[in-house]
Amino acid sequence: MTVSVTLGDLGARLGAKIVGDAGIVLRGIRPLDEAGPEHLSFLHNPKYRSQLESSRAGAVIVDDPELAPDRNLLVVEHPYLAHARALEIFYPEELPPPGVHPSAVVDSSACLGEGVSVGPCAVVGPGCSVGDRSVIAPGAVLVRDVAVGVDCRIHSRVVVENGCRIGDRCILHAGVVLGADGFGFATVDGVHHKVPQVGIVVVEDDVEIGANTCIDRAALGETRIGRGTKIDNLVQIAHNVVIGEGSLIVAQTGISGSTRLGHHVVMGGQVGTVGHIRIGDGAIIGAKGGVIKDVPDGAFIAGFPTQPYQEWVRSMAQVRNLWKLRRRLTEMEKMLERLRAKVEGERNREEQ
Amino acid sequence: MTVSVTLGDLGARLGAKIVGDAGIVLRGIRPLDEAGPEHLSFLHNPKYRSQLESSRAGAVIVDDPELAPDRNLLVVEHPYLAHARALEIFYPEELPPPGVHPSAVVDSSACLGEGVSVGPCAVVGPGCSVGDRSVIAPGAVLVRDVAVGVDCRIHSRVVVENGCRIGDRCILHAGVVLGADGFGFATVDGVHHKVPQVGIVVVEDDVEIGANTCIDRAALGETRIGRGTKIDNLVQIAHNVVIGEGSLIVAQTGISGSTRLGHHVVMGGQVGTVGHIRIGDGAIIGAKGGVIKDVPDGAFIAGFPTQPYQEWVRSMAQVRNLWKLRRRLTEMEKMLERLRAKVEGERNREEQ
Amino acid sequence: MTVSVTLGDLGARLGAKIVGDAGIVLRGIRPLDEAGPEHLSFLHNPKYRSQLESSRAGAVIVDDPELAPDRNLLVVEHPYLAHARALEIFYPEELPPPGVHPSAVVDSSACLGEGVSVGPCAVVGPGCSVGDRSVIAPGAVLVRDVAVGVDCRIHSRVVVENGCRIGDRCILHAGVVLGADGFGFATVDGVHHKVPQVGIVVVEDDVEIGANTCIDRAALGETRIGRGTKIDNLVQIAHNVVIGEGSLIVAQTGISGSTRLGHHVVMGGQVGTVGHIRIGDGAIIGAKGGVIKDVPDGAFIAGFPTQPYQEWVRSMAQVRNLWKLRRRLTEMEKMLERLRAKVEGERNREEQ
Repeated sequence: MTVSVTLGDLGARLGAKIVGDAGIVLRGIRPLDEAGPEHLSFLHNPKYRSQLESSRAGAVIVDDPELAPDRNLLVVEHPYLAHARALEIFYPEELPPPGVHPSAVVDSSACLGEGVSVGPCAVVGPGCSVGDRSVIAPGAVLVRDVAVGVDCRIHSRVVVENGCRIGDRCILHAGVVLGADGFGFATVDGVHHKVPQVGIVVVEDDVEIGANTCIDRAALGETRIGRGTKIDNLVQIAHNVVIGEGSLIVAQTGISGSTRLGHHVVMGGQVGTVGHIRIGDGAIIGAKGGVIKDVPDGAFIAGFPTQPYQEWVRSMAQVRNLWKLRRRLTEMEKMLERLRAKVEGERNREEQ
Repeated sequence: MTVSVTLGDLGARLGAKIVGDAGIVLRGIRPLDEAGPEHLSFLHNPKYRSQLESSRAGAVIVDDPELAPDRNLLVVEHPYLAHARALEIFYPEELPPPGVHPSAVVDSSACLGEGVSVGPCAVVGPGCSVGDRSVIAPGAVLVRDVAVGVDCRIHSRVVVENGCRIGDRCILHAGVVLGADGFGFATVDGVHHKVPQVGIVVVEDDVEIGANTCIDRAALGETRIGRGTKIDNLVQIAHNVVIGEGSLIVAQTGISGSTRLGHHVVMGGQVGTVGHIRIGDGAIIGAKGGVIKDVPDGAFIAGFPTQPYQEWVRSMAQVRNLWKLRRRLTEMEKMLERLRAKVEGERNREEQ
Repeated sequence: MTVSVTLGDLGARLGAKIVGDAGIVLRGIRPLDEAGPEHLSFLHNPKYRSQLESSRAGAVIVDDPELAPDRNLLVVEHPYLAHARALEIFYPEELPPPGVHPSAVVDSSACLGEGVSVGPCAVVGPGCSVGDRSVIAPGAVLVRDVAVGVDCRIHSRVVVENGCRIGDRCILHAGVVLGADGFGFATVDGVHHKVPQVGIVVVEDDVEIGANTCIDRAALGETRIGRGTKIDNLVQIAHNVVIGEGSLIVAQTGISGSTRLGHHVVMGGQVGTVGHIRIGDGAIIGAKGGVIKDVPDGAFIAGFPTQPYQEWVRSMAQVRNLWKLRRRLTEMEKMLERLRAKVEGERNREEQ
């Protein structure tokens, strides 16, 4: 389903300054190199600036009208954000109808807000509550005493275990598991005795969690994901981890138990951390990094064990060139030996 | 359920040359060291050649009849392929009965081909179509407007999100998530605004996707998996990735957004790539490799950042021996100092 | 739901020696720094010993009564184990009611033991058996001919494929996939022909498997997880892997096909192994390690490729300091050159 909008209407809705023909009708969004005259396009990465001239796009979102003075433009301060908003206009979210599908199982003690949709074969267990307009997609399971806020999207086959709490406007993609037991055992004589995991997971407002990501319940207390944090697919977050606000955790990263992330932390893909450390506000961890100790605020680190990013880049280059280093060393040893022989020889001659 | 077959019948069905007694009856397949007289066995890895002599197998699939002239043999060009075909004969796939289970929910607007099986508590949403003889296993969910080709196996708890398209003869193992939103945000003043992901995932014919693997829908346009490509478990494929034909992606690998793989690429386990790069036809990336730039056709690389495989092997050996390098350096420094003292000393003496 | 217990009662149930007032009533467990007078606390990590003095806890589990002679104590040999047992007392597992939910689908040929609970929208397929008191949570699927022992917890959205067998007292967390096909293909002329995976997965008694972990069925024969082994979230275990008893496999680790682990092996997070190797009893593999060959019993290794742990620590430190090594080398080259010039010069002078 695609919507048709005039450039003028778009500009009004996006709060953008219009340059050119406000009357043209646009029917979708395409990248610069794929757009036709009926498409809106966007330039938010200077890397693609060369495509601007040749693009057939009917109109383009830019931050600087000088970039293409002869074109229909939407001029905004943040082109990528305007692009996101324009996508919402052209491709409005198609929500399932509100109401509980006859095949869904909603316990009589559960409480559903207004306009909630519970899809086929979804399960809302005893003591659960779901806020207004939230969507529980087909096959999702809220096991027991789960609280979901308003305007959430709980996709298919999500499982939220007992007692976990999800804020407003959260998105849990398909296959997310919230609140499985943390990995905790008391080992005596080689036998691993389960330590009951009796805490919960708390997900604050505006959090998005990627497909098949797992966030374990706390051993005691809470595992907590801060407001506005976004987590990618297949991420592992262990028991009692606390993540601050506005952080970004890229796919397949693993955060070990009781580690605390500050606000606005960024972790690249496939990062791993040990447990019980503190990662400071605004820290950035490069992809595949292995973090084994506290990270100060604002650090930009990479590698395993991590080191400052620029140092890591240099170290890696040197590792690749180790064979050269070794060759230089070998040559020098030979030269030194020749020199030594010569000096000793001279002395010997002198002594003779 | 195991089937009994004579060697002669097997040979005919596999297009194999028979050596020995075509009348013996075989009742299953076992590795050489476990097979008895009622079993077929196989030799496709020369490593196991020593087991051939002592094996009690009733018959063996080989490519060279000289390997065991005194045995019952099936001689074929490709023993491992014949082994695969023989497995199909001895252990025929047990399909669930066609038809829609009463507990399944198939939307009235969905379209099912002939002989389709929809298992208990499976959901086929509005606008979906499923080709002839495909199996939608218990608990699988096709959310909306999903197209599935003929002879597919959509295992339990697979989720295919809105609008995604799956070709013929595809296998999606349990827990696969196709078409969750890509990880895309427009960050302004520390707030991550969601960029709607309005593209789809297209899976071409003969693709197999492993358990709990995630393939994100495109931001705009398509994420595409080429014909005959096989993907292992717990793999992450980000939005707008394109994978060519006949590629192999081993478990826990992650491919970042908009990266393009050519045909017949092989990625070992736990590989990661950055986004927006091109990996050439026939490239091989060693396990745990981290790919940060374009890879030419046919390259064989490993490490993080990746380097040619042989170089990486050498580099890693040198890293392990760095302490030796350092020791040589220290010795040389001492020797150089002694030599310097001697030479300077001599000069001093001369100058005195 | 929290239970109130007197210290005396607790001591009796835990087999602990009581120091102090056996009559005080406790209402839960908290860490030392969060506990109040109504809470039991625990000291099992000497790191937190300093918190003992300032803690407001009503009573503390310790192994040495001398640590806090003025406090109410439970003195036991293994404080962490006693802590686990105390958690079971204060926070008893809340089990769903026995019986089959009307929305669940239990095939007429399936066999359920006494006190079994099958939750909403769960599926127990043909030929399956479930032992006494086991719980099949909402949305879980036992596909066909699956055997589950007694006192198991099969959480929501677990899938167990055909013919797999699970022992007694096992816990499978949400999203686990047991018995998907292994990744096996016979490649001829660039086409990957599927090798049917006709084996099963066997999970022995007292095994716990984390959320969204995948354990593939054997190509032929069995993939086997030994008694008392505990596996974390998002782990990949390939076909024909055998894991011994009492092993610990941390999150996001991947074990390739036919690799055999001994007993009491520990693998850190994000470890990877090649296939067809043997990892000895009691071996410990550090997080992110890449194992490419056999590992002897009791080895403690790390890195990629792995090396003895202490060596790896040293190697990594040296990699970080490579730039210093290079600088020393360059200085030495200069000095050597100066010295050479001097020696040659002197000789020349002598020769003049």
